[in-house]
Amino acid sequence: MSALTLYDYLVSGNGYKVRLLLHQLERAYERIELDITRGETRTPEFLARNPNGRIPCLVLEDGTPLAESNAILWYLAEGTAFLPSERLARAQVLQWMFFEQYSHEPFIAVVRFWIHAGLEGEHADEIPERRRRGVEALGVMEAHLSQRAFFVGERYSIADIALYAYTHVAHEGGFDLTGFPAVRAWLARVAEQPRHIPITQS
Amino acid sequence: MSALTLYDYLVSGNGYKVRLLLHQLERAYERIELDITRGETRTPEFLARNPNGRIPCLVLEDGTPLAESNAILWYLAEGTAFLPSERLARAQVLQWMFFEQYSHEPFIAVVRFWIHAGLEGEHADEIPERRRRGVEALGVMEAHLSQRAFFVGERYSIADIALYAYTHVAHEGGFDLTGFPAVRAWLARVAEQPRHIPITQS
Repeated sequence: MSALTLYDYLVSGNGYKVRLLLHQLERAYERIELDITRGETRTPEFLARNPNGRIPCLVLEDGTPLAESNAILWYLAEGTAFLPSERLARAQVLQWMFFEQYSHEPFIAVVRFWIHAGLEGEHADEIPERRRRGVEALGVMEAHLSQRAFFVGERYSIADIALYAYTHVAHEGGFDLTGFPAVRAWLARVAEQPRHIPITQS
Repeated sequence: MSALTLYDYLVSGNGYKVRLLLHQLERAYERIELDITRGETRTPEFLARNPNGRIPCLVLEDGTPLAESNAILWYLAEGTAFLPSERLARAQVLQWMFFEQYSHEPFIAVVRFWIHAGLEGEHADEIPERRRRGVEALGVMEAHLSQRAFFVGERYSIADIALYAYTHVAHEGGFDLTGFPAVRAWLARVAEQPRHIPITQS
Protein backbone atom coordinates (compact mmCIF):
# COMPACT_ATOMS: atom_id res chain seq x y z
CA MET A 1 0.00 0.00 0.00
CA SER A 2 1.42 3.39 -1.03
CA ALA A 3 1.58 6.28 1.38
CA LEU A 4 -0.55 9.39 1.07
CA THR A 5 0.72 11.76 -1.63
CA LEU A 6 0.08 15.50 -1.35
CA TYR A 7 0.33 17.69 -4.44
CA ASP A 8 1.20 20.99 -2.87
CA TYR A 9 2.80 24.45 -3.22
CA LEU A 10 4.73 25.67 -0.21
CA VAL A 11 3.54 29.30 -0.45
CA SER A 12 -0.12 28.21 -0.43
CA GLY A 13 -2.19 28.56 2.73
CA ASN A 14 -4.60 26.00 1.31
CA GLY A 15 -1.72 23.53 1.05
CA TYR A 16 -0.50 24.52 4.53
CA LYS A 17 -3.87 23.58 6.06
CA VAL A 18 -3.33 19.99 4.94
CA ARG A 19 0.39 19.89 5.86
CA LEU A 20 -0.41 21.21 9.35
CA LEU A 21 -3.16 18.68 10.01
CA LEU A 22 -1.12 15.76 8.60
CA HIS A 23 1.73 16.76 10.92
CA GLN A 24 -0.57 17.10 13.94
CA LEU A 25 -2.09 13.70 13.14
CA GLU A 26 1.43 12.25 12.81
CA ARG A 27 0.54 10.91 9.37
CA ALA A 28 3.39 10.14 6.95
CA TYR A 29 3.01 11.41 3.39
CA GLU A 30 4.96 12.14 0.27
CA ARG A 31 4.86 15.76 -0.85
CA ILE A 32 5.11 16.80 -4.50
CA GLU A 33 5.72 20.51 -5.03
CA LEU A 34 4.03 22.14 -8.03
CA ASP A 35 4.78 25.77 -8.83
CA ILE A 36 1.40 27.28 -9.64
CA THR A 37 3.06 30.44 -10.99
CA ARG A 38 4.69 28.27 -13.70
CA GLY A 39 1.55 26.43 -14.79
CA GLU A 40 2.54 23.16 -13.14
CA THR A 41 -1.07 22.53 -11.98
CA ARG A 42 -2.33 22.82 -15.57
CA THR A 43 -0.42 19.91 -17.09
CA PRO A 44 -2.44 16.98 -18.52
CA GLU A 45 -0.92 14.71 -15.86
CA PHE A 46 -2.12 16.87 -12.97
CA LEU A 47 -5.49 17.69 -14.54
CA ALA A 48 -6.14 13.92 -14.64
CA ARG A 49 -5.96 13.99 -10.83
CA ASN A 50 -7.78 17.30 -10.27
CA PRO A 51 -9.68 18.56 -13.33
CA ASN A 52 -10.06 21.90 -11.52
CA GLY A 53 -6.27 22.32 -11.75
CA ARG A 54 -5.60 23.38 -8.17
CA ILE A 55 -3.46 22.31 -5.26
CA PRO A 56 -3.76 20.90 -2.68
CA CYS A 57 -4.76 17.50 -4.01
CA LEU A 58 -4.33 14.49 -1.75
CA VAL A 59 -3.93 11.11 -3.44
CA LEU A 60 -5.12 8.40 -1.06
CA GLU A 61 -3.44 5.03 -0.50
CA ASP A 62 -5.62 3.39 -3.18
CA GLY A 63 -4.87 6.10 -5.77
CA THR A 64 -8.10 8.08 -5.37
CA PRO A 65 -7.45 11.84 -5.65
CA LEU A 66 -9.27 14.21 -3.30
CA ALA A 67 -9.29 17.96 -3.99
CA GLU A 68 -10.40 21.12 -2.14
CA SER A 69 -8.37 21.87 1.00
CA ASN A 70 -11.31 21.91 3.39
CA ALA A 71 -12.75 18.63 2.03
CA ILE A 72 -9.32 17.06 2.56
CA LEU A 73 -9.22 18.41 6.15
CA TRP A 74 -12.65 16.87 6.78
CA TYR A 75 -11.59 13.50 5.35
CA LEU A 76 -8.43 13.37 7.46
CA ALA A 77 -9.99 14.71 10.67
CA GLU A 78 -13.02 12.38 10.74
CA GLY A 79 -12.88 10.27 13.90
CA THR A 80 -10.09 12.38 15.48
CA ALA A 81 -10.03 15.15 18.10
CA PHE A 82 -9.77 17.74 15.30
CA LEU A 83 -13.45 17.32 14.29
CA PRO A 84 -16.30 17.32 16.83
CA SER A 85 -18.71 14.39 16.87
CA GLU A 86 -21.93 16.32 17.62
CA ARG A 87 -24.17 17.07 14.64
CA LEU A 88 -24.58 20.81 15.28
CA ALA A 89 -20.89 21.38 16.07
CA ARG A 90 -19.93 19.55 12.87
CA ALA A 91 -22.24 21.78 10.83
CA GLN A 92 -20.73 24.83 12.55
CA VAL A 93 -17.24 23.64 11.57
CA LEU A 94 -18.49 23.51 7.98
CA GLN A 95 -20.15 26.92 8.33
CA TRP A 96 -16.77 28.47 9.16
CA MET A 97 -14.94 26.50 6.47
CA PHE A 98 -17.42 27.71 3.82
CA PHE A 99 -17.08 31.24 5.23
CA GLU A 100 -13.32 30.86 4.78
CA GLN A 101 -13.54 29.82 1.14
CA TYR A 102 -16.24 32.32 0.12
CA SER A 103 -15.78 35.41 2.31
CA HIS A 104 -12.12 35.28 3.39
CA GLU A 105 -9.77 33.44 0.99
CA PRO A 106 -10.79 35.27 -2.24
CA PHE A 107 -9.78 38.56 -0.60
CA ILE A 108 -7.06 37.93 1.98
CA ALA A 109 -5.29 35.06 0.19
CA VAL A 110 -5.67 36.39 -3.34
CA VAL A 111 -4.20 39.83 -2.57
CA ARG A 112 -1.26 38.12 -0.81
CA PHE A 113 -0.75 35.87 -3.82
CA TRP A 114 -0.79 38.78 -6.25
CA ILE A 115 1.90 40.52 -4.20
CA HIS A 116 3.93 37.29 -3.91
CA ALA A 117 3.73 36.66 -7.67
CA GLY A 118 4.52 40.27 -8.64
CA LEU A 119 1.02 40.78 -10.05
CA GLU A 120 0.13 43.73 -7.81
CA GLY A 121 0.35 46.24 -10.66
CA GLU A 122 -1.73 44.12 -13.01
CA HIS A 123 -4.55 43.92 -10.44
CA ALA A 124 -4.19 47.42 -9.00
CA ASP A 125 -7.80 48.38 -9.77
CA GLU A 126 -9.21 45.29 -8.01
CA ILE A 127 -7.12 45.51 -4.84
CA PRO A 128 -9.05 48.21 -2.91
CA GLU A 129 -12.34 46.24 -3.09
CA ARG A 130 -10.59 42.97 -2.17
CA ARG A 131 -8.98 44.72 0.79
CA ARG A 132 -12.34 46.11 1.90
CA ARG A 133 -13.93 42.67 1.82
CA GLY A 134 -10.93 41.07 3.54
CA VAL A 135 -11.23 43.59 6.39
CA GLU A 136 -14.96 42.80 6.54
CA ALA A 137 -14.14 39.08 6.99
CA LEU A 138 -11.64 39.92 9.75
CA GLY A 139 -14.43 41.92 11.45
CA VAL A 140 -16.75 38.90 11.41
CA MET A 141 -13.97 36.77 12.93
CA GLU A 142 -13.18 39.42 15.56
CA ALA A 143 -16.82 39.61 16.70
CA HIS A 144 -17.03 35.81 16.98
CA LEU A 145 -13.67 35.36 18.72
CA SER A 146 -14.20 38.21 21.18
CA GLN A 147 -16.35 35.77 23.17
CA ARG A 148 -14.65 32.48 22.34
CA ALA A 149 -11.24 30.77 22.45
CA PHE A 150 -11.77 28.81 19.21
CA PHE A 151 -14.28 28.90 16.36
CA VAL A 152 -16.45 25.94 17.41
CA GLY A 153 -17.14 24.27 20.75
CA GLU A 154 -14.29 25.97 22.64
CA ARG A 155 -11.87 23.46 21.17
CA TYR A 156 -9.21 23.58 18.46
CA SER A 157 -10.61 22.01 15.28
CA ILE A 158 -10.19 22.02 11.52
CA ALA A 159 -12.32 25.21 11.46
CA ASP A 160 -9.40 26.93 13.22
CA ILE A 161 -6.85 25.33 10.89
CA ALA A 162 -8.83 26.48 7.83
CA LEU A 163 -9.04 30.08 9.04
CA TYR A 164 -5.54 30.25 10.53
CA ALA A 165 -3.84 29.40 7.23
CA TYR A 166 -4.33 32.76 5.51
CA THR A 167 -5.13 34.93 8.54
CA HIS A 168 -1.67 34.46 10.09
CA VAL A 169 -0.02 35.69 6.88
CA ALA A 170 -2.61 38.40 6.14
CA HIS A 171 0.10 41.05 6.70
CA GLU A 172 1.88 39.68 3.60
CA GLY A 173 -1.18 40.92 1.70
CA GLY A 174 -1.00 44.29 3.41
CA PHE A 175 -3.74 43.60 5.98
CA ASP A 176 -3.13 45.19 9.37
CA LEU A 177 -4.36 43.10 12.33
CA THR A 178 -3.72 45.82 14.94
CA GLY A 179 -7.45 46.58 15.22
CA PHE A 180 -8.36 42.90 15.68
CA PRO A 181 -7.09 41.92 19.16
CA ALA A 182 -9.31 38.85 19.54
CA VAL A 183 -8.08 37.54 16.18
CA ARG A 184 -4.46 38.10 17.27
CA ALA A 185 -5.02 36.30 20.59
CA TRP A 186 -6.61 33.39 18.70
CA LEU A 187 -3.69 33.23 16.25
CA ALA A 188 -1.36 32.87 19.24
CA ARG A 189 -3.55 30.11 20.73
CA VAL A 190 -3.50 28.19 17.46
CA ALA A 191 0.28 28.53 17.16
CA GLU A 192 0.62 27.08 20.70
CA GLN A 193 -1.15 23.83 19.82
CA PRO A 194 0.90 20.64 20.07
CA ARG A 195 2.88 19.76 16.92
CA HIS A 196 2.21 23.14 15.27
CA ILE A 197 4.44 23.84 12.26
CA PRO A 198 4.99 27.09 10.31
CA ILE A 199 3.72 27.55 6.76
CA THR A 200 7.27 27.33 5.42
CA GLN A 201 7.79 23.81 6.82
CA SER A 202 6.90 20.71 4.87
CA MET B 1 -40.63 23.58 20.40
CA SER B 2 -40.63 26.06 17.50
CA ALA B 3 -40.37 24.94 13.90
CA LEU B 4 -37.33 25.55 11.73
CA THR B 5 -37.13 29.13 10.46
CA LEU B 6 -35.38 29.90 7.19
CA TYR B 7 -34.21 33.44 6.46
CA ASP B 8 -34.29 33.42 2.70
CA TYR B 9 -34.54 35.40 -0.57
CA LEU B 10 -36.58 33.76 -3.31
CA VAL B 11 -34.23 34.79 -6.16
CA SER B 12 -31.24 33.22 -4.40
CA GLY B 13 -29.92 29.85 -5.57
CA ASN B 14 -28.22 29.50 -2.19
CA GLY B 15 -31.63 29.85 -0.54
CA TYR B 16 -33.18 27.49 -3.10
CA LYS B 17 -30.73 24.72 -2.15
CA VAL B 18 -32.15 24.70 1.37
CA ARG B 19 -35.81 25.07 0.26
CA LEU B 20 -35.40 22.16 -2.15
CA LEU B 21 -33.83 19.84 0.42
CA LEU B 22 -36.36 20.79 3.12
CA HIS B 23 -39.16 20.00 0.66
CA GLN B 24 -37.60 16.68 -0.37
CA LEU B 25 -37.12 15.77 3.30
CA GLU B 26 -40.77 16.76 3.95
CA ARG B 27 -39.64 19.07 6.75
CA ALA B 28 -41.98 21.86 7.80
CA TYR B 29 -40.45 25.32 8.22
CA GLU B 30 -41.32 28.98 8.45
CA ARG B 31 -39.78 31.12 5.70
CA ILE B 32 -38.87 34.77 6.23
CA GLU B 33 -38.13 36.66 3.03
CA LEU B 34 -35.38 39.30 3.19
CA ASP B 35 -34.71 41.46 0.14
CA ILE B 36 -30.92 41.56 -0.14
CA THR B 37 -31.11 44.35 -2.73
CA ARG B 38 -32.71 46.57 -0.05
CA GLY B 39 -30.20 45.89 2.70
CA GLU B 40 -32.55 43.68 4.70
CA THR B 41 -29.70 41.27 5.56
CA ARG B 42 -27.66 44.12 7.06
CA THR B 43 -30.04 45.12 9.85
CA PRO B 44 -28.82 44.76 13.45
CA GLU B 45 -31.54 42.15 14.06
CA PHE B 46 -30.37 39.92 11.21
CA LEU B 47 -26.66 40.48 11.87
CA ALA B 48 -27.27 39.11 15.37
CA ARG B 49 -28.24 35.81 13.70
CA ASN B 50 -25.61 35.82 10.96
CA PRO B 51 -22.79 38.32 11.51
CA ASN B 52 -21.73 37.71 7.91
CA GLY B 53 -25.04 39.29 6.79
CA ARG B 54 -26.09 36.69 4.25
CA ILE B 55 -29.04 34.46 3.53
CA PRO B 56 -29.79 31.61 3.79
CA CYS B 57 -29.68 31.34 7.55
CA LEU B 58 -31.56 28.48 9.20
CA VAL B 59 -32.66 28.99 12.79
CA LEU B 60 -32.98 25.60 14.48
CA GLU B 61 -35.74 24.55 16.87
CA ASP B 62 -33.70 25.65 19.89
CA GLY B 63 -32.92 29.08 18.41
CA THR B 64 -29.40 28.34 17.18
CA PRO B 65 -28.70 30.03 13.83
CA LEU B 66 -26.77 28.15 11.16
CA ALA B 67 -25.38 29.99 8.12
CA GLU B 68 -23.74 29.02 4.80
CA SER B 69 -26.04 27.16 2.42
CA ASN B 70 -23.85 24.09 2.04
CA ALA B 71 -23.29 23.74 5.81
CA ILE B 72 -27.09 23.88 6.23
CA LEU B 73 -27.52 21.18 3.55
CA TRP B 74 -25.00 18.99 5.40
CA TYR B 75 -26.77 19.49 8.74
CA LEU B 76 -30.18 18.62 7.31
CA ALA B 77 -29.00 15.70 5.14
CA GLU B 78 -26.99 13.89 7.83
CA GLY B 79 -28.48 10.44 8.37
CA THR B 80 -30.70 10.64 5.25
CA ALA B 81 -30.43 9.26 1.71
CA PHE B 82 -29.21 12.68 0.52
CA LEU B 83 -25.75 12.23 2.10
CA PRO B 84 -23.68 9.05 1.68
CA SER B 85 -22.44 7.26 4.77
CA GLU B 86 -19.01 6.18 3.46
CA ARG B 87 -16.05 8.31 4.51
CA LEU B 88 -14.59 8.86 1.03
CA ALA B 89 -17.96 9.56 -0.60
CA ARG B 90 -18.75 12.11 2.12
CA ALA B 91 -15.46 13.89 1.48
CA GLN B 92 -16.21 13.86 -2.26
CA VAL B 93 -19.60 15.48 -1.57
CA LEU B 94 -17.71 18.20 0.31
CA GLN B 95 -15.16 18.48 -2.50
CA TRP B 96 -17.93 19.35 -4.95
CA MET B 97 -19.66 21.68 -2.50
CA PHE B 98 -16.42 23.62 -1.94
CA PHE B 99 -15.89 23.64 -5.72
CA GLU B 100 -19.37 25.15 -6.02
CA GLN B 101 -18.71 27.96 -3.56
CA TYR B 102 -15.20 28.79 -4.76
CA SER B 103 -15.08 28.03 -8.49
CA HIS B 104 -18.72 28.24 -9.62
CA GLU B 105 -20.96 30.52 -7.52
CA PRO B 106 -18.73 33.65 -7.60
CA PHE B 107 -18.93 33.61 -11.41
CA ILE B 108 -22.21 32.02 -12.50
CA ALA B 109 -24.38 33.23 -9.61
CA VAL B 110 -22.82 36.65 -9.25
CA VAL B 111 -23.22 37.61 -12.94
CA ARG B 112 -26.86 36.42 -12.79
CA PHE B 113 -27.41 38.53 -9.67
CA TRP B 114 -25.88 41.64 -11.25
CA ILE B 115 -28.23 41.27 -14.22
CA HIS B 116 -31.21 40.62 -11.91
CA ALA B 117 -30.42 43.67 -9.77
CA GLY B 118 -29.74 45.97 -12.73
CA LEU B 119 -26.05 46.24 -11.85
CA GLU B 120 -24.75 44.95 -15.20
CA GLY B 121 -23.52 48.37 -16.29
CA GLU B 122 -21.78 49.07 -13.00
CA HIS B 123 -19.83 45.79 -13.26
CA ALA B 124 -19.32 45.79 -17.05
CA ASP B 125 -15.54 45.61 -16.78
CA GLU B 126 -15.63 42.57 -14.47
CA ILE B 127 -18.19 40.52 -16.41
CA PRO B 128 -15.93 39.06 -19.16
CA GLU B 129 -13.51 37.51 -16.64
CA ARG B 130 -16.40 36.20 -14.49
CA ARG B 131 -17.95 34.66 -17.60
CA ARG B 132 -14.65 33.04 -18.56
CA ARG B 133 -14.28 31.46 -15.13
CA GLY B 134 -17.95 30.40 -15.08
CA VAL B 135 -17.48 28.61 -18.40
CA GLU B 136 -14.34 26.98 -16.96
CA ALA B 137 -16.41 25.64 -14.04
CA LEU B 138 -19.03 24.30 -16.45
CA GLY B 139 -16.20 22.54 -18.30
CA VAL B 140 -15.03 20.83 -15.10
CA MET B 141 -18.62 19.68 -14.45
CA GLU B 142 -19.05 18.48 -18.05
CA ALA B 143 -15.90 16.33 -17.89
CA HIS B 144 -17.00 14.77 -14.60
CA LEU B 145 -20.63 14.17 -15.63
CA SER B 146 -19.73 12.77 -19.05
CA GLN B 147 -18.98 9.50 -17.24
CA ARG B 148 -21.45 9.70 -14.37
CA ALA B 149 -25.15 10.16 -13.64
CA PHE B 150 -24.61 12.21 -10.46
CA PHE B 151 -21.65 13.94 -8.83
CA VAL B 152 -20.86 11.33 -6.16
CA GLY B 153 -21.49 7.59 -5.92
CA GLU B 154 -23.96 7.42 -8.81
CA ARG B 155 -26.68 8.68 -6.50
CA TYR B 156 -28.51 11.99 -6.09
CA SER B 157 -27.04 13.82 -3.08
CA ILE B 158 -26.60 17.30 -1.64
CA ALA B 159 -23.59 17.70 -3.97
CA ASP B 160 -26.10 17.68 -6.85
CA ILE B 161 -28.45 20.04 -5.04
CA ALA B 162 -25.59 22.48 -4.36
CA LEU B 163 -24.48 22.54 -8.01
CA TYR B 164 -27.96 22.42 -9.54
CA ALA B 165 -29.10 25.61 -7.80
CA TYR B 166 -27.18 28.09 -9.96
CA THR B 167 -26.39 25.85 -12.95
CA HIS B 168 -30.05 25.44 -13.92
CA VAL B 169 -30.47 29.24 -14.04
CA ALA B 170 -27.04 29.95 -15.59
CA HIS B 171 -28.78 31.21 -18.75
CA GLU B 172 -30.19 34.08 -16.65
CA GLY B 173 -26.56 35.18 -16.31
CA GLY B 174 -26.00 34.83 -20.04
CA PHE B 175 -24.27 31.43 -19.87
CA ASP B 176 -25.05 29.15 -22.82
CA LEU B 177 -25.24 25.44 -21.91
CA THR B 178 -25.50 24.23 -25.52
CA GLY B 179 -21.90 23.03 -25.49
CA PHE B 180 -22.37 21.10 -22.23
CA PRO B 181 -24.61 18.12 -23.06
CA ALA B 182 -23.65 16.03 -20.02
CA VAL B 183 -24.48 18.99 -17.75
CA ARG B 184 -27.86 19.39 -19.48
CA ALA B 185 -28.67 15.68 -19.12
CA TRP B 186 -27.75 15.86 -15.43
CA LEU B 187 -29.94 18.94 -14.93
CA ALA B 188 -32.85 16.93 -16.34
CA ARG B 189 -32.08 13.99 -14.04
CA VAL B 190 -32.03 16.27 -10.99
CA ALA B 191 -35.34 17.87 -12.00
CA GLU B 192 -36.89 14.38 -12.24
CA GLN B 193 -36.13 13.51 -8.62
CA PRO B 194 -39.11 12.90 -6.33
CA ARG B 195 -40.54 16.05 -4.70
CA HIS B 196 -38.46 18.40 -6.87
CA ILE B 197 -39.61 22.05 -6.74
CA PRO B 198 -38.65 25.00 -8.92
CA ILE B 199 -36.54 27.90 -7.61
CA THR B 200 -39.60 30.17 -7.63
CA GLN B 201 -41.52 27.94 -5.22
CA SER B 202 -41.29 28.35 -1.49
